[in-house]
Amino acid sequence: MTSAKTELETKAKAAKAASRRMAYLSAEIKNKALHNISADILSKQKEILAANQKDYRAAEDSGMDAAMLDRLMLDTKRLEAIAQDVLSVAALPDPVGEVFEMRTLPNGLQLGKRRVPLGVIGAIYESRPNVTVDISALCLKSGNALILRGGKEAIHSNSALAKVVQGAATRAGVPEGAVQLIENTDRKLVGDMLQMRQYIDLIIPRGGAGLIKLVRDNAAMPVVAGGIGVCHTYVDRSADIDKAVAIVFNAKVQRPTVCNALDTVLVHADIAPKYLPKMAKKLAEAGVEMHCDKRAMAILKSNSSLKLKAATDEDWGKEFLALVAAIKVVDSLDEALEHIERYGSGHSEAILTEEYGAAMRFLNEVDAAAVYANASTRFTDGSMFGLGAEVGISTQKFHARGPLGVRELTSYKWIVFGSGQVRP
Amino acid sequence: MTSAKTELETKAKAAKAASRRMAYLSAEIKNKALHNISADILSKQKEILAANQKDYRAAEDSGMDAAMLDRLMLDTKRLEAIAQDVLSVAALPDPVGEVFEMRTLPNGLQLGKRRVPLGVIGAIYESRPNVTVDISALCLKSGNALILRGGKEAIHSNSALAKVVQGAATRAGVPEGAVQLIENTDRKLVGDMLQMRQYIDLIIPRGGAGLIKLVRDNAAMPVVAGGIGVCHTYVDRSADIDKAVAIVFNAKVQRPTVCNALDTVLVHADIAPKYLPKMAKKLAEAGVEMHCDKRAMAILKSNSSLKLKAATDEDWGKEFLALVAAIKVVDSLDEALEHIERYGSGHSEAILTEEYGAAMRFLNEVDAAAVYANASTRFTDGSMFGLGAEVGISTQKFHARGPLGVRELTSYKWIVFGSGQVRP
Repeated sequence: MTSAKTELETKAKAAKAASRRMAYLSAEIKNKALHNISADILSKQKEILAANQKDYRAAEDSGMDAAMLDRLMLDTKRLEAIAQDVLSVAALPDPVGEVFEMRTLPNGLQLGKRRVPLGVIGAIYESRPNVTVDISALCLKSGNALILRGGKEAIHSNSALAKVVQGAATRAGVPEGAVQLIENTDRKLVGDMLQMRQYIDLIIPRGGAGLIKLVRDNAAMPVVAGGIGVCHTYVDRSADIDKAVAIVFNAKVQRPTVCNALDTVLVHADIAPKYLPKMAKKLAEAGVEMHCDKRAMAILKSNSSLKLKAATDEDWGKEFLALVAAIKVVDSLDEALEHIERYGSGHSEAILTEEYGAAMRFLNEVDAAAVYANASTRFTDGSMFGLGAEVGISTQKFHARGPLGVRELTSYKWIVFGSGQVRP
Repeated sequence: MTSAKTELETKAKAAKAASRRMAYLSAEIKNKALHNISADILSKQKEILAANQKDYRAAEDSGMDAAMLDRLMLDTKRLEAIAQDVLSVAALPDPVGEVFEMRTLPNGLQLGKRRVPLGVIGAIYESRPNVTVDISALCLKSGNALILRGGKEAIHSNSALAKVVQGAATRAGVPEGAVQLIENTDRKLVGDMLQMRQYIDLIIPRGGAGLIKLVRDNAAMPVVAGGIGVCHTYVDRSADIDKAVAIVFNAKVQRPTVCNALDTVLVHADIAPKYLPKMAKKLAEAGVEMHCDKRAMAILKSNSSLKLKAATDEDWGKEFLALVAAIKVVDSLDEALEHIERYGSGHSEAILTEEYGAAMRFLNEVDAAAVYANASTRFTDGSMFGLGAEVGISTQKFHARGPLGVRELTSYKWIVFGSGQVRP
């Protein structure tokens, strides 16, 4: 075993040991830890920003592009926002210890489920250093120990932030070892980490499709991943045109770089001649490029102020993450449902309709983390859904689907209060 | 690709296609299917028993041992029991379609979670042919399509039973393709099946530790496994001695071959001299062999009618599945908790005590699927817990823990009723 792997294993073991005590830590201590973290981020910002400067300069020297540099960069304002987010997590109700489905059996046994942490969460993420604090806060709140493995580019920032988190948490009474940072950024260690099923109960990859695939293909333990959203909005023949224009505009334009942004608009042929020109005009205000199928193109091409392109096969099922939308005219709700089934990624899908039956069929039949009638897919988000902060959005069905808040980082155990019962 | 693999993929695709319609099949159709299956098992018992005879004779010729032959064997009485079990599944409430956590946000969006099937379940199991029917019933009830891969020894029985299930289900309106049986028993196909993440949403292995490990190590999709139970019962210093004798006897003796049966008794040193002789005398009535640590041995050895052995290191953490129990004297609740943490398998653990604080600490701190105060661990079971039939008992924390009933074969989707909302 390499010494780096030995060190990783030592950290993983320490996290596992800490997790046993974390499981029944009081909400008081956990919230104290979160308040400490929030305060320390502000009081130790000099050290944090100095570490971040090291990363930033190295990244600049290596020719990192502006968007990535921006993600890496910390300043006082960003630290204040991070510190504020930690307080929001502290304000959430403690998910651990909730007892539910409690009942008394005919033989007098009282039994129910009690919510418990999952144990040890492994987080593997790319360049944003704020993830170090976000995930630490969510794991502490949910009573999980944590092993952080951030990107090489942010190693000094992550080390400084992890040190702040560790010190602040320990001071509040959180067991030492509860938050571990892997400081060796050798890529091979990720592979080793993904095999440590005996210590790590869940892996959360946060990053691009490549990272997620690597983790999915190699992890020996459960993985919660998502983050890829090919989102459709279907404008039914009975849609309210003004509402539909506003919703499609919002879903595409309000924040185009995120997973719940609109990718494809499907429009019923009956409403397309009236609807599409208004929608396109509105989208054009924000500079949206529209990749149109033949029928949509026929309707829109007379307006020379629009950015139109003929759609290709690659446009269907594509996550654009930019001011681009694919547009297709369909002949029926059934055709829309089939298109979504074929090309959707199971993230967020919407129907815009005034017809009750169409809305109900869409909500029943579409298989996605979130299905909408008459609203923007941009709402698929832990804070919008009222769960508080999230570690991500799951597009898988197992364990948890959609926004993953602190409750989704828990499991349960059956607790049974007896008075001498034996099985007949 | 081999032709066998092509055939497997064809079946997997058909199951996936069927699963989309299964997701919104009415409870009426699903229950009709279950009633049909129950009736057909009885009306077609001649064919089923003839097929089973083929398997049985081949197994006899190959020198299969008596216990395995017994598991393979079907007769009218067993078919009647299987048919009855299917009716019990039909009588359960439909888990699919339940809407929970529905709320209205300040912006008027109404959202909540709606329970949906997981999709396609793959079941890989060993020689018991009743599993073919049990799992089919649970999957149909929960709206999941199913791919069955049973053992070679039971192939004729499984084919006959699957045919009955398929015919009965289709007659009720369940989409064709919903229940698939892989009739090619080439071991290599299991490996192929475990890679088919695009078609199979969950794998359930039912069988010995070897099968479970094979599946865990190789499956590209989520796995729910369990079934291995190293169960401790800790007799605290304040235990009620008569109750404790009865509970330990029940946990060990009532059905020693199953995963929730007792393996190790931990006894507090203060109560051991009074308790152990009574417990041992009672266990001896059922012929239980006791593997004692030094202190337990010192207390018990004077009774020459007991079957005693000196415990070895291998006895701690061993699942006996037989009339054998390991016995250890401990000095404190803490020592018992540490022993369980080290040797338990996370299945079922019990404390017997009249002391409130000890019971609460045990229930809080022990990390297992089911933790008991003053009752037999034999209760960890879907039907005892009131969930109805189960596909198994999960000792993992992810998704579901403990008995897996029909509800544990589901996920949820967020449904959102809007009236034009856009994200600010």
